[in-house]
Amino acid sequence: MLKKLVLGIDVGGTNVKTALVNQFGDVLQRLNWPMEAMNGPEKFALEVHDKVSEMLQEAEFQWSDIGAAGVGLPAFLDIREGKIEQAVNLHWTNVPIVTLLADCLQVPVVIDNDANLAALGEVWLGAGKQSHSALCVTLGTGIGGGIVIDGHVYRGAATMAGEIGHIPIKWDGEICNCGHRGCFETLASATALAKAGQRVNLVSPRGVNQELTAEDVFTLAREGHVVASQVIQEMIYWLALGLTSVANTLNPDVIVIGGGVVLAGDALLVPLRKSFEELALPRVVRSCEIRAAQLGEKAGMLGAARLAWQYIDMNMD
Amino acid sequence: MLKKLVLGIDVGGTNVKTALVNQFGDVLQRLNWPMEAMNGPEKFALEVHDKVSEMLQEAEFQWSDIGAAGVGLPAFLDIREGKIEQAVNLHWTNVPIVTLLADCLQVPVVIDNDANLAALGEVWLGAGKQSHSALCVTLGTGIGGGIVIDGHVYRGAATMAGEIGHIPIKWDGEICNCGHRGCFETLASATALAKAGQRVNLVSPRGVNQELTAEDVFTLAREGHVVASQVIQEMIYWLALGLTSVANTLNPDVIVIGGGVVLAGDALLVPLRKSFEELALPRVVRSCEIRAAQLGEKAGMLGAARLAWQYIDMNMD
Repeated sequence: MLKKLVLGIDVGGTNVKTALVNQFGDVLQRLNWPMEAMNGPEKFALEVHDKVSEMLQEAEFQWSDIGAAGVGLPAFLDIREGKIEQAVNLHWTNVPIVTLLADCLQVPVVIDNDANLAALGEVWLGAGKQSHSALCVTLGTGIGGGIVIDGHVYRGAATMAGEIGHIPIKWDGEICNCGHRGCFETLASATALAKAGQRVNLVSPRGVNQELTAEDVFTLAREGHVVASQVIQEMIYWLALGLTSVANTLNPDVIVIGGGVVLAGDALLVPLRKSFEELALPRVVRSCEIRAAQLGEKAGMLGAARLAWQYIDMNMD
Repeated sequence: MLKKLVLGIDVGGTNVKTALVNQFGDVLQRLNWPMEAMNGPEKFALEVHDKVSEMLQEAEFQWSDIGAAGVGLPAFLDIREGKIEQAVNLHWTNVPIVTLLADCLQVPVVIDNDANLAALGEVWLGAGKQSHSALCVTLGTGIGGGIVIDGHVYRGAATMAGEIGHIPIKWDGEICNCGHRGCFETLASATALAKAGQRVNLVSPRGVNQELTAEDVFTLAREGHVVASQVIQEMIYWLALGLTSVANTLNPDVIVIGGGVVLAGDALLVPLRKSFEELALPRVVRSCEIRAAQLGEKAGMLGAARLAWQYIDMNMD
C-alpha cells in the first residue's frame, strides 16, 4: 500500500522538532516539544509516540498513513546497527534507538546525525537543490557539516564524513577542546568570531551587560565600526582557508553556509567568496557556488523526512 | 554478444602503457611505447590503433573481442563532453579525445584523469580492495589523489575531487607553483622531502654528484643519519596533517599511499600512522587503515581497464 506521509524528527539537546511531511516536502503538521534526555531513551520513545499521535489526530491522519520515520540525532551513530554509540549532550551511550523507536511507533525507523540531515534537507528543498555534490556547513558553537552526493548523504566509514570542525587550519594555532591545535572551529565558528570580538573589547550594541555575539560583531561592522570589520575579515580568511581544504578535496558544486551568522547575508558571503577565489584552485572555484542556507532550523527535520522517503523508495518493489 | 576483454590505456607524459585485461583483472598482454605528444592527438589515436592491433595479434585476439577502452590522461577533462580541456605536460588543449579514439578504434571509449584511475586500480586489485571509501594519494613531484566510493571514482563537479596537492596545510608557508601559500605538495611530496634534504646539505649515498632524492633521504636515515631522520620526521608531520584534513572530511576506510617513497615501507608508514593518530579525530582514525599502494606503475592502466568494464556493465541489458 502506498503511504502518504513520513515523519521527520530532529532531536536536539533542548528541543525535539517533528513534522508530518509528504513526498513533495510539504509540511502538513508540526510539533515541537522540550527534549528531556535525562528521562532516558525508553521514555523518549514513548513520548515520541504520544506526540506523534497528537499531531496525527490534529491533522486528521492515522498511523497507517505513515510509511517511515526519519530521525536526526546529535550523536555518534552506528547506522548499520541502528545504535547511538554516544550522544554527548544527551548523556546517552550505547542506545539501540532504531529498535526502541520502531517498537514504539510500529513504523520503519531510519537514523542519521543532525548535521548530515540538515545537509540533506538543504539539498532536497533549500539552497542545495539540484546539486550533485553539496557540502553544507553550519557555523555555530562549533562547525558542523554534511556531504550530500547525488541526493544521498555520504557518511564515510564511521558516519564522520563532513565533520570538518576539526580539520587543522592553523598548524601553530590554539589548542581546541578536542586536544588538537588550530582546528577549523576555533577560528571560523560563530563562537570563534564572538570570542575574537571580545578579545579586542568590542561592546555589544544590545548593551554593555550583554555578552558579545557573532551577530553583534556584524551589527557593529555594518554601523561602521572599523575594528569589528577587521575581526570579521580575519574570521572570513580562516573560513575561506578551511573551505579551500575541503573544496579542493571534494570539488562540490555547492557549498551551503548555515547558522545564525548567515543572517549577515552579503556582508559574510561576498568577502567569503572573494577570499575563497583567492585561495582555492581555479577549476574548483569556477565549478562551485557558495550560498546561504534557506531552511533555517527546519533543515534537520526536513532532511529526516527525506531520509524516510529514501528508505521507502529503496524498499518498494 | 559478451566481450572477453577491455583495453586499459594509461597515457603519461613520457610513456603510454596499454594492456588487454579480462573482467577479473588479469593482464593478458601488455605493450608500452614512448608518448610523442608533439605529433598531436590525431597521430596519437592512430598510433594507439596500430599498437593495440599489434598486441591483439601477438595474443591471438581480435578487435571484436574488445568491449571498450578505458583511457587515463594527465589532464583536466570535461568528462561529459569527452574532452581534454588542458593537458599541461602534453601541450594539448581542447581535444575531443573520446571521439578521436572511438573513431580510430571502433570501440566505446571512456576517460578519466590518471590519478583517479590509479585510485580505481588500487581499489579494484590492490591495496584498496573491498574498501567502501578509499582515498589514494601519490607522493611524487607533487601530490596527486583520487577518491573511490563504493567502487566508483568520485569526481566532483569538475573532475577535481581528490586533487589534494593544493590544500593549504601551512597558512604561513612558502608560495607554491600554483600561487598559493603552504600547499600540501610543497611540504609532503617526494620532491619536498628531497628539497628539505638538500637544504640541510645531505649528500646522496649514490655519490656526491648525484642529486639527492627522497629515496636517498630514507636510505641515509636507515643507515643511522640523524639529520636525515629529522628531515623525514618533519615531512611525515606535514603528510599526517594534510591527511588529517582530508580524512576528517571524507572519513575513508582506507588511505592508500603510492609513489616511490612507499618503498621505504614501515620507515614511512609506521611514523605516519602514529602522527595521523595524534592529529585526526579518534573515530576517523579507528575506522581508517593506511596502506602502501601495491600496483606500482600498473595502477593507472588497470584502473583504466576497470573503468571500461564499468562502462560495459552499465550498458548491458
